[in-house]
Amino acid sequence: MSGEFTRIAKYFAPLAGTEGRGLTDDAAVFTPPPGRELVLTVDQMLEGVHFLPNDAPDLIARKLLRRNLSDLAAMGATPLGYLLTVALTQTVDEAWLQGFAKGLAHDQTEFGITLFGGDTSSSRGGIALSATLIGHAAPNAALSRNGAKPGDAIWVTGTIGDAALGLRARLGQLEDKTGFLVQRSLLPSPRVGLPLAGIANAAIDISDGLVQDLGHMCKGAALSAVIRAGLIPASPEAAALGPDYLEARLTEGDDYELLLAVPPGKGGALKAACNGLPITKIGMFQAGTGVHVLADDGTLMSFAKGGWEHF
Amino acid sequence: MSGEFTRIAKYFAPLAGTEGRGLTDDAAVFTPPPGRELVLTVDQMLEGVHFLPNDAPDLIARKLLRRNLSDLAAMGATPLGYLLTVALTQTVDEAWLQGFAKGLAHDQTEFGITLFGGDTSSSRGGIALSATLIGHAAPNAALSRNGAKPGDAIWVTGTIGDAALGLRARLGQLEDKTGFLVQRSLLPSPRVGLPLAGIANAAIDISDGLVQDLGHMCKGAALSAVIRAGLIPASPEAAALGPDYLEARLTEGDDYELLLAVPPGKGGALKAACNGLPITKIGMFQAGTGVHVLADDGTLMSFAKGGWEHF
Repeated sequence: MSGEFTRIAKYFAPLAGTEGRGLTDDAAVFTPPPGRELVLTVDQMLEGVHFLPNDAPDLIARKLLRRNLSDLAAMGATPLGYLLTVALTQTVDEAWLQGFAKGLAHDQTEFGITLFGGDTSSSRGGIALSATLIGHAAPNAALSRNGAKPGDAIWVTGTIGDAALGLRARLGQLEDKTGFLVQRSLLPSPRVGLPLAGIANAAIDISDGLVQDLGHMCKGAALSAVIRAGLIPASPEAAALGPDYLEARLTEGDDYELLLAVPPGKGGALKAACNGLPITKIGMFQAGTGVHVLADDGTLMSFAKGGWEHF
Repeated sequence: MSGEFTRIAKYFAPLAGTEGRGLTDDAAVFTPPPGRELVLTVDQMLEGVHFLPNDAPDLIARKLLRRNLSDLAAMGATPLGYLLTVALTQTVDEAWLQGFAKGLAHDQTEFGITLFGGDTSSSRGGIALSATLIGHAAPNAALSRNGAKPGDAIWVTGTIGDAALGLRARLGQLEDKTGFLVQRSLLPSPRVGLPLAGIANAAIDISDGLVQDLGHMCKGAALSAVIRAGLIPASPEAAALGPDYLEARLTEGDDYELLLAVPPGKGGALKAACNGLPITKIGMFQAGTGVHVLADDGTLMSFAKGGWEHF
């Protein structure tokens, strides 16, 4: 096994932008884009919690970046670069590192970001990873999850619940004939680059489950949300599994789609901003508290679990 | 045990600056100081690797910040704020979290920083922590570890090797009568705020051991370093343990003192910049490669281990 500094030079230094100074310095240095605000977010991925021990390293790397890119997307920010922490167990070999670095390189190109810096360590528990993403936005244009207003429509991008079902398929609990659900679980599609400033009053990315994340928007705005289960967009693969999986789709995490609060007159502008990305109106914010999910017959549904909490 | 969002609101939200938006948003937003470059660094601390399971949580928190502040110090940057990741095992209780938050609060005040954001998770291995520190510096003023020139004197702040000896005391391998060495191991003093731009040609903080970190400076500048063991500053407590511990003092990590490359004529300016902080000249950079440590009689010393590597 190669040593720590050899591994940094071999696998990570080629990923560094000029800000990263070849990963030989104590910190990254960069000139912020003039006249812009900076948007910073950090997310972890831990073995046994966020990924399974046998998951492919390139997909782990890409999901790590994409979870964070999704946070920037929810703020309406343009990604710029990232810092990385990597704590490795003794079982990690060169092939794993090579795959991991390849995944980072792939998504760096796809999303136009470079590595600014990081920290490597050994780990006595499982593999532990984190990425700090740096983005930018026009002054006062960064979205908040707390800005919803009464009467705002609730819109959601893409389809909801694929990742929750994909995780079950990976655990052997259901069959995913096409592999679509598993793919959605392993490799989310962060909705970066949508010009939502001036259109959406609030935005959040769905990481802990639609009901829970919508609950955060409600709490932040001191409002309630009423949504119709029948309107919540399902992929054909998820729809084929039937209503037994509705609760899982709405309360489990990892969708990385955007939930948006949009004033009634701005649906057209929203669709134009989304530029072909499917987007669906599922309900409305109004006075009150809590998230209310209505069945097709108008009755209120209740779920055993609100959404994902770590502890 | 309280849930994840309750814990965030209770222990971490009170630490957030305005940039952190009460920790209720997907990311932090801030306006970079105009006309300044940003300096970013990230370091991890993992249970069983960087701290012992029974270490006091407030000191773990403070060391986490200080390790990163030391990286900013080595760049000559002024700290502004930080993002935090916290992955907790099921054994972590409210008292631990309270102590941890108290430690963060203490050093936020001491170093003039606030919490910008973060991520909490459960962990199936030990506790895993990271902090991303954000600082700023004048354009082109951030120091590099790679700028040493032939003839530059090698200076070091404070005393070297206390933390390595303190760790041995904590493991019961030696006696630390006054508690000074243990304190230096648990709570480093990052040398932030020294106005080194225009004085030092290069700087690095000593985290992996003096010999190894000096080696990084040599490699970065394609130079060699000659230092005299007898000149390397020892605290009275370290000196009292005698020459048997010299190798440990020079090759083990966690000092968080600064190593500086300073042109011959600038020793006076350096002392003025350090404003009373003890600083010692221990050798010189010259043509060649490698770090050469000379004993009092001028013979070359050799050490079994160059310094700390994680793998």
